[in-house]
Amino acid sequence: VSVDRALIDIERACGDGSVLTDPDVLESYGRDTSEVAPQRPVAAVRASTAEHVSAVMRAASEHAVAVTPRGAGTGRVGAATPTPGGLVLVSDRMRSIERIDERDLVATTQPGVVLGDLHRRAEEQGVFFPPDPNSLDECTIGGNVATNAGGPRALKYGTMRNWVLGLQVVTGDGTILELGKQTPKGVTGYDLTALVVGSEGTLAVTTRATLKLLPAPEKVVTMLVFLPDHESVERAVGAAYARRIVPRCVEFLDSIALELVRPDAGIPIPENAQSMLLVELDGDEQTVDRQLEICGEAMLQAGAEDVLVAKNTAERQRLWGARKELSYTMRRQATNKLSEDVCVPRTRIAALLDRCARLSEQTGITMPTYGHAGDGNLHVNFLWDRPDERPQVEHAIRSVFEAVLEMGGTLSGEHGIGLLKVPYLHMEQPAELISLQEQIKGLFDPKGILNPDKCFPEGARRFHGAHGAC
Amino acid sequence: VSVDRALIDIERACGDGSVLTDPDVLESYGRDTSEVAPQRPVAAVRASTAEHVSAVMRAASEHAVAVTPRGAGTGRVGAATPTPGGLVLVSDRMRSIERIDERDLVATTQPGVVLGDLHRRAEEQGVFFPPDPNSLDECTIGGNVATNAGGPRALKYGTMRNWVLGLQVVTGDGTILELGKQTPKGVTGYDLTALVVGSEGTLAVTTRATLKLLPAPEKVVTMLVFLPDHESVERAVGAAYARRIVPRCVEFLDSIALELVRPDAGIPIPENAQSMLLVELDGDEQTVDRQLEICGEAMLQAGAEDVLVAKNTAERQRLWGARKELSYTMRRQATNKLSEDVCVPRTRIAALLDRCARLSEQTGITMPTYGHAGDGNLHVNFLWDRPDERPQVEHAIRSVFEAVLEMGGTLSGEHGIGLLKVPYLHMEQPAELISLQEQIKGLFDPKGILNPDKCFPEGARRFHGAHGAC
Repeated sequence: VSVDRALIDIERACGDGSVLTDPDVLESYGRDTSEVAPQRPVAAVRASTAEHVSAVMRAASEHAVAVTPRGAGTGRVGAATPTPGGLVLVSDRMRSIERIDERDLVATTQPGVVLGDLHRRAEEQGVFFPPDPNSLDECTIGGNVATNAGGPRALKYGTMRNWVLGLQVVTGDGTILELGKQTPKGVTGYDLTALVVGSEGTLAVTTRATLKLLPAPEKVVTMLVFLPDHESVERAVGAAYARRIVPRCVEFLDSIALELVRPDAGIPIPENAQSMLLVELDGDEQTVDRQLEICGEAMLQAGAEDVLVAKNTAERQRLWGARKELSYTMRRQATNKLSEDVCVPRTRIAALLDRCARLSEQTGITMPTYGHAGDGNLHVNFLWDRPDERPQVEHAIRSVFEAVLEMGGTLSGEHGIGLLKVPYLHMEQPAELISLQEQIKGLFDPKGILNPDKCFPEGARRFHGAHGAC
Repeated sequence: VSVDRALIDIERACGDGSVLTDPDVLESYGRDTSEVAPQRPVAAVRASTAEHVSAVMRAASEHAVAVTPRGAGTGRVGAATPTPGGLVLVSDRMRSIERIDERDLVATTQPGVVLGDLHRRAEEQGVFFPPDPNSLDECTIGGNVATNAGGPRALKYGTMRNWVLGLQVVTGDGTILELGKQTPKGVTGYDLTALVVGSEGTLAVTTRATLKLLPAPEKVVTMLVFLPDHESVERAVGAAYARRIVPRCVEFLDSIALELVRPDAGIPIPENAQSMLLVELDGDEQTVDRQLEICGEAMLQAGAEDVLVAKNTAERQRLWGARKELSYTMRRQATNKLSEDVCVPRTRIAALLDRCARLSEQTGITMPTYGHAGDGNLHVNFLWDRPDERPQVEHAIRSVFEAVLEMGGTLSGEHGIGLLKVPYLHMEQPAELISLQEQIKGLFDPKGILNPDKCFPEGARRFHGAHGAC
């Protein structure tokens, strides 16, 4: 009933067609791309302006209704899954790229802009926006802000947080705030921009983002490096750095991932290859060509059995196409799949891969691994068919997390906590740190209505029972 | 009396010699390098461990005594000036570089480590820590964290916040927290690391920092570009970017700054030069040499009258020596000096310089300007001799701030708010944003004892009256 009252207020403020209740539409807003169970929202709300978003949050506050902000729903941990009994707030009416300034190297966009569209528009003007999560042709800037999106190029360029200069946001009680700056530097007050980036829709709703750009690199080259064992993978991952070269990405694929990529890779992958690195360099033409030679030599010295180079853009694109499909092709390999997203120091990659291999042997769970090896950020997957294998999967996941934390790593390199990792958060963070974050949320969202079941155990417990959402 | 009780508790916890009350020593801790009036602390406290810092904060909480954390006191806005009636907490017993790992590209240091020492130690291992504030031979990592230190190289590499992966901190109530991560990526929870960086000692005391490193660039070259007018300065600042080259710094010196640098520059500065850019490129040898040629050509096309190149490291170092002394040489030019630190979009540099020139003419105040032009971050100075000129100075400062904000800029590019800019904060940030920050401070520092008079008007008013510290 209080939801209905909130929706009346919202429709009055945002206009006809701003509240969607069609069951099929709501169904489509019920999940992200994770394994979290779908949850149909009571309604979906479409805002066109920051003032609309403010009205939505005021109405939701007044009637104590949960609001889950949603981009394209491409997240991996259930952060965009609607809170039971709540609304989703979608950004499909806020899709304008307001400004790309190639002289100031700044862009301003609304939250519903698709990242890939920003990439293309920027490139037309000779500039470049680095973050490149896998879902870049669907995911939105608002979602990228909420998740601190990464991607392969994060190795050289860092994640979303490094590229957000300022945000216009609406907090839980409907206050519109301008955070941050429009200039590359600025230290006026606390960095609330950095705080909101990666907060998974729990602190505020982004209504505009001011982004930093770079001149577009002249040339990009892609190298495939085939390696026989985990030690050589680790050596190869560090090989470019040791030559003072920072590649823009160093992606890893283990033998299972490699087999899945093989049919569509468009480049002949050697039959006996155990694992592969996909290394990219960017910069001006002469530099890249020289670095390519140095890196290739370094990879052979690190133990590579073979090094191939993509001959042209078409080859590059086909290869990346196959790499980007990997998460989906992997899902088809078994009835059930869970994907974790740990990050370890670069020099612990071999140890982590060894540990995963042993765990897979012990538990009988298939555990293919791939990801952003240059950053030590690996996606460890768990594939299984029979329901009675689930306890073994749970044991394997906990064991991976324990190993990762022992190595000085973290539970999540880029996917976040959402619902899926809430039950494990306490393994990495003590109670007082979690409590401090929950209190900060309380300042941005005094009524606790902004995606309240995500990230922290308290909200998850309230909405999903003792074990969070899993 | 309550201070005395706090000091007894502190000395008991931290050992003999941990509490300093010698007047000369206290005098030396009374100020930073800004124009803020000195304020002698009641005592200085020396902690050797995080547990000591925790004991200090617990004692100070219990007895309601203000604590100002202090690095080397090289700040520019009075942020390290002791709070009246309070203690300073110094880091001279925490000077260990605990780890520099050139394979993981990570360093771990205690807060009292001098930045220049970290630079040298890193370079010995072939790695590189980019932040380079002017005071790098004195300033400490703890202070760099507190101020989000920048420097010339911020243009290519960003400021301190980009290079801090994790922090061990002690909050106002003495809680020891491990924030952030030890890996390049990580999205477990809110980014409290980024929040603490730049918080000027108001949220927490840093007791350990985990820093990100890069491979050291093979070569650095320095170019001097002499320009006839403001328009050509602006064109020259953008010229490298337009050729897809990102210099590591683009520093600007106006004609007054140039005259002051001339005697010690070690390079013949043309007699008629109106202003100069100091441009540095870094990378591998061949790339840098080629970029130097392209940039030189671009500068001439942008209107440069002359381009010189430093012939060797000795020439480079002498030039930078003169540049780094500039703030001090400028102070000797008049009885009084105030230095502001605004940042505007790169394409508004000419407009800002024009505005400063007109204001200087109107007010009769000498206003030399120099700084990090590539980032649009200019240090506008105000020099005057007679006390009765002060209202004109105040008018000029406010006018510069108004112009900067109109241009989409910010009050402080890298110096921070401290005490000096508190009276102007409301020009950039509305009351609700300031209040939100003060509430966040309340969570980290429930008793309000951590540098309570800095950054925000409420604390400043309590300790210094209605107009902050000015």
